[in-house]
Amino acid sequence: MLNPWADPGKPTGERVAALLAELTLEEKLAQLVGVWVGISEGEEVAPAQHEFAEPLPPWDELTKPGLGQLTRVFGTGPVEPLVGAKVLAETQRKLVANTRFGIPAMAHEECLSGFTAWQATVFPTPLAWGASFDPETVERMAREVGLAMRDVGVHQGLAPVLDVTRDPRWGRTEETIGEDPYLVGLLGAAYTKGLESSGIVATLKHFAGYSASRGGRNHAPVHMGPREFADVVLPPFEMALRLGGARSVMNSYAEVDGVPPAADPALLTDLLRGQWGFTGVVVADYFAVSFLETAHAIAGSPGDAAALALAAGIDVELPSVRCYGEPLAELVRSGRVDEALVDQAVTRVLTQKCELGLLDEGWQPDSPAVLRGEPVDLDPPALRDLARTMAERSVVLLDNAGDVLPLRDAGKVAVVGPCADDLLALMGCYAFPNHVGVQHPEVALGVEMDTMLQAVRKEFPDAAVTTAKGCDVDGDDRSGLEDAVAVAREADVVLAVLGDRAGLFGRGTSGEGCDAEDLNLPGVQGELLERLLALDVPVVLVLLTGRPYALGSYRPAAIVQAFFPGEEGAGAVAGVLSGRVNPSGKLPVQVPRGPGGQPTTYLHPPLGGPGGVSSVDPSPAYPFGHGLSYTTFELSDFAGGAQFPTDGEVEVSCLVRNTGDRAGAEVVQLYLHDPVASVTRPVRQLVGFARVELEAGAATEVTFRLHADRTSFTGRDGKRVVETGDVVLQVGCSSKDIRWEHEVALTGEPRVVGHDRVLVTPVTTTAR
Amino acid sequence: MLNPWADPGKPTGERVAALLAELTLEEKLAQLVGVWVGISEGEEVAPAQHEFAEPLPPWDELTKPGLGQLTRVFGTGPVEPLVGAKVLAETQRKLVANTRFGIPAMAHEECLSGFTAWQATVFPTPLAWGASFDPETVERMAREVGLAMRDVGVHQGLAPVLDVTRDPRWGRTEETIGEDPYLVGLLGAAYTKGLESSGIVATLKHFAGYSASRGGRNHAPVHMGPREFADVVLPPFEMALRLGGARSVMNSYAEVDGVPPAADPALLTDLLRGQWGFTGVVVADYFAVSFLETAHAIAGSPGDAAALALAAGIDVELPSVRCYGEPLAELVRSGRVDEALVDQAVTRVLTQKCELGLLDEGWQPDSPAVLRGEPVDLDPPALRDLARTMAERSVVLLDNAGDVLPLRDAGKVAVVGPCADDLLALMGCYAFPNHVGVQHPEVALGVEMDTMLQAVRKEFPDAAVTTAKGCDVDGDDRSGLEDAVAVAREADVVLAVLGDRAGLFGRGTSGEGCDAEDLNLPGVQGELLERLLALDVPVVLVLLTGRPYALGSYRPAAIVQAFFPGEEGAGAVAGVLSGRVNPSGKLPVQVPRGPGGQPTTYLHPPLGGPGGVSSVDPSPAYPFGHGLSYTTFELSDFAGGAQFPTDGEVEVSCLVRNTGDRAGAEVVQLYLHDPVASVTRPVRQLVGFARVELEAGAATEVTFRLHADRTSFTGRDGKRVVETGDVVLQVGCSSKDIRWEHEVALTGEPRVVGHDRVLVTPVTTTAR
Repeated sequence: MLNPWADPGKPTGERVAALLAELTLEEKLAQLVGVWVGISEGEEVAPAQHEFAEPLPPWDELTKPGLGQLTRVFGTGPVEPLVGAKVLAETQRKLVANTRFGIPAMAHEECLSGFTAWQATVFPTPLAWGASFDPETVERMAREVGLAMRDVGVHQGLAPVLDVTRDPRWGRTEETIGEDPYLVGLLGAAYTKGLESSGIVATLKHFAGYSASRGGRNHAPVHMGPREFADVVLPPFEMALRLGGARSVMNSYAEVDGVPPAADPALLTDLLRGQWGFTGVVVADYFAVSFLETAHAIAGSPGDAAALALAAGIDVELPSVRCYGEPLAELVRSGRVDEALVDQAVTRVLTQKCELGLLDEGWQPDSPAVLRGEPVDLDPPALRDLARTMAERSVVLLDNAGDVLPLRDAGKVAVVGPCADDLLALMGCYAFPNHVGVQHPEVALGVEMDTMLQAVRKEFPDAAVTTAKGCDVDGDDRSGLEDAVAVAREADVVLAVLGDRAGLFGRGTSGEGCDAEDLNLPGVQGELLERLLALDVPVVLVLLTGRPYALGSYRPAAIVQAFFPGEEGAGAVAGVLSGRVNPSGKLPVQVPRGPGGQPTTYLHPPLGGPGGVSSVDPSPAYPFGHGLSYTTFELSDFAGGAQFPTDGEVEVSCLVRNTGDRAGAEVVQLYLHDPVASVTRPVRQLVGFARVELEAGAATEVTFRLHADRTSFTGRDGKRVVETGDVVLQVGCSSKDIRWEHEVALTGEPRVVGHDRVLVTPVTTTAR
Repeated sequence: MLNPWADPGKPTGERVAALLAELTLEEKLAQLVGVWVGISEGEEVAPAQHEFAEPLPPWDELTKPGLGQLTRVFGTGPVEPLVGAKVLAETQRKLVANTRFGIPAMAHEECLSGFTAWQATVFPTPLAWGASFDPETVERMAREVGLAMRDVGVHQGLAPVLDVTRDPRWGRTEETIGEDPYLVGLLGAAYTKGLESSGIVATLKHFAGYSASRGGRNHAPVHMGPREFADVVLPPFEMALRLGGARSVMNSYAEVDGVPPAADPALLTDLLRGQWGFTGVVVADYFAVSFLETAHAIAGSPGDAAALALAAGIDVELPSVRCYGEPLAELVRSGRVDEALVDQAVTRVLTQKCELGLLDEGWQPDSPAVLRGEPVDLDPPALRDLARTMAERSVVLLDNAGDVLPLRDAGKVAVVGPCADDLLALMGCYAFPNHVGVQHPEVALGVEMDTMLQAVRKEFPDAAVTTAKGCDVDGDDRSGLEDAVAVAREADVVLAVLGDRAGLFGRGTSGEGCDAEDLNLPGVQGELLERLLALDVPVVLVLLTGRPYALGSYRPAAIVQAFFPGEEGAGAVAGVLSGRVNPSGKLPVQVPRGPGGQPTTYLHPPLGGPGGVSSVDPSPAYPFGHGLSYTTFELSDFAGGAQFPTDGEVEVSCLVRNTGDRAGAEVVQLYLHDPVASVTRPVRQLVGFARVELEAGAATEVTFRLHADRTSFTGRDGKRVVETGDVVLQVGCSSKDIRWEHEVALTGEPRVVGHDRVLVTPVTTTAR
């Protein structure tokens, strides 16, 4: 007869309770920790030697009472996928065999821009997804990523990042989807839904406030009041939970008004579980429990840190046993921490494992890939196609003032700049090659891809392509500038390929820990650009960046902003240059004019914007939502209801016609302006959008069904409220390109908006 | 028989109630407004034509029901003090004669760095007071300023500014006392006490949050949570109210987390009056009531704005009748605003007028100056002496790495830079000449003073002094650089006199509305400095600035930071250069290394400081509290109690000895470090200081009596709490020059700190 907890026929709650009742305290706590592993020479799992990690006992001793999580079997170094899958399976097999109850570990991996594993598809970074305004493609991408991870035995992915850009100096801006909470929420929910649909547990991070740290410095304190927190930071998380069905949440490192989220029960328990109804597992960002002692100084010992985090609602310490190991055990044994708190966290963890089948009798440690036994292709054509689609839709044509694009007759093309012939320049810091590339440069690249230079050569086979690096991405070495200028001078057109080099912990110009003091192009790239612009040759500025940089002082013939477009990105950008791809990306973050004056956001109230009593004008060089196309779109036949009740909907519609001579896509954007409210509101705020693909001459009617919920905001009493009175709906093609304004009355009574439904604006498109 | 309200023998409450009962609604509302006046050609008061002001009816019509406040008779243009006093008296006389009850107006003026009037003493700016760490001199200065204002008939002064520097890019940084709430509070309270002791009503501003606006842009939103607000922003106001006895408070313009202070009853009423017991008058910052409609968009009309502001606790609209005039009258008449709210504000205004004697039978409109009838000297020797003392104590010798100071044998001295020969460069934006100087350049200067060049010539009569401007303060004109370099090359020493030009509304590089995108020296001054530093001549950098600028990339032989030292400032700086004055100023704000990365503050928690996971290191070039002397001080004989109860005190003492060969002053600084607390705390925070003057070889014992209250902070429940456990007290000469660390245990029970006493650390000094 089966153990009751191993019987798939019984209800989950019953199985988990039965198992919990059998576990010793040590066995319980073992379920609440993860260990960072690597694959040793002998192709076995071993604790990784990480700079933040404490020394660990030998594997067998460590895992004797079990193990909650395995951290990044595939992520620490280059490992053949099939080898990784086999090692993971073997590790699980030993874990099952050598522990009293044979509970497998959850295996988690990063998947911010694709599975962060050697030879896996490198997708564009989230900021590029934001530029696509394309939730469907994001969802398909996430599903495919998840399926690939499932195939090799992974259970959980540490994505998506739902932080809303609040200061582009922050190095992790590349990991965000943009500066608008609705855009971040909708695309983040799509990603979550896609990943969860593959069976992988999605992990929403970083909950919450991280992106608004002081001066854009990673981990620095967040200065923010509860209203901004509720209206800007939280909505994407609520949307991804409700629309995407995420089963895990990870805390943010940065304190908010003095309270680190990992020790904040109001956030992790009262709001997340109480109000939002979350029933999954809350995991700690790496070492965040320890940080309560060592970095925030709100705990005096590892045990204190554990007690604070556990009480707040952190279920699993990752990837460490420093606090939730012996120190927490000691506190429970001495009665200073109630074992019921431990049981609650263990119940959540076991429930998730049970639902994933990990507790089932006869659970199979071998993943499908291991069972097949054939080499695993983590970058198959279907994923490359998706990477290409995503990349093509994310390229933003910022400017074409010189009317040089598309480059139909290229002639002599100089491809200049530090990102011109560098594969790594196309990827974010969570792409495997950049993530571990510094330690393993010789094997960093596991996928086929072109640099911009190679892609340009392919795209323009008849062109005479020359190249020069000019300078490094960072640093002040000017020795290559002359050469680059000389190369450029001889060309018919210069492609200045500038941008970032993503890295971790300060080892790059963008990425985790790679913050910027200002928004000048890194190193001497600005100088290189000025030298090129001084020539009598048209310059197309191609930007491969993790953040928006200040472009107000440059006047190139054209600007193509690609963020980090991934393994198919060079071709996508080259396609835009040639006209093979008609650009349709829109800015998910505004591009500033000057390098200083940060933070700024397009979501400013009247007094925070241009025209105030300040010599500093925060107007951007290119506004949120901006992006050009090679065709033209006309918006017409605007219509909208005159009023709607505070618990109802209003329809707004327009006809979008492709009035140019080629197919293209426009992102029709719906903004809300609230002329008078009880607290200050953004002058303009995105409340709906529709990406519309149209053949030349074709037209589509776009109808937004705006619910009054989407006009809500957090009032002085902390409640989310829909107020009565007039609001103005604006339809346009960027936040500054408004084609129609429409006043609508909200009627009835002011209404408090609960957490029982999610604030989405459905869009219908009908060909006309 | 006297009218009851005019009888000085009766209690104030009775008099005010009697008068209130007589007033019509229009007469009441007239007491709640002020009008910005100027003195016309005919030497009569007339409404000023201000860019923000609405058109007003003729004076007699406007003032028929009375008038609450007269705004800046002396401040709008240059007027002989006696003429101004006479016009003011005549205006009051007409007001008394032509209104039913003959109530005079309160006359208010600016007095941020001295009385903002033509020919009045120009004192150093508040940032310079901060550098003095000298509350006694600040108090004496404020008293003298007040006495001069009283003499010409003024009742209220719109100072001090108690905003704590949170982002030095903000143009009004020059108006702040520094970045530490205790320093700001203690010096602000001293200023308040001094001004109030003269009979002038002090006005605490800007209540509250203004200085932390986004990107340092004036009026931009403040992102701040309630704990930071309570622990950093509010304490100086509470200190100035309790220790200084301020009778007026002015709101801040900038919204905090979506709520403009002028419409925040929780701030202006619940906290200010309810918790703190304030009984005076809350006045609006200029046009702040209108801004609720026109800038914050939380009111739909002037009447709505009036209703919001009045309900929140704004008693007087300044300087405008746009909202509290007819629009508010209409709302009261129609019953939409309760007249009791009006009565409450009028009662406060009349109570203040009554206490000032303005309601007394036979009140004399002629001020003492008018009665004397002799020319008024607003800049007498006593005030000049105070201005000199304040200036001398505020000059900070940042660096003397080249050991060139003092310049005993000057030889050939080149005085170079845009601030070298400019009187206005020595003054802040609220000094009369700068305040109205743009409109009246020909008469801007009403006091005798030297430029830095003139002062250097006087200080070094035997030196061969040459000069060159080099460049303007702002702008990119490089045409003068060569000349300046040529002049400098021939010298034995270069004094590079660089800095700001204060102005209003963007007409300067520092001052109200003159914000900076970064902390590079303005214009091409950095380039000028680099050119000078490239020469083979020692350069002394003399900074006359309204904010700290990034100095990390310069290595001059010495740096003298003077902020805006006022009319005696050039001599004070020259005295420091020659050694006649031994510098004793200490930095009230840290000086950053790089121009970007703002905001920063020395009050960072562990994770917000250097050494974190960020490529941007926020360490300053020169830390808070830093400043050199020409003599040396040794701290020794440290002693301190081992513990103190959470409602008690601990003593910490040390011996300070002047170990050099000349007299000097040291500022001994006491810092608190809290190793573990329930919320994050600053790594180090000033809790006491003592400015000690010592002859060569002399010694003084300094004893701090630290109350446990000063270890308090705002906990998660919003209450100010003293926690038990160890704290570390640090004694030193700057926030980075700690000479002694001492662990002390806080014993007993955690204690909530009420608002019944103020958190000051008494210091005793005993010569040894």
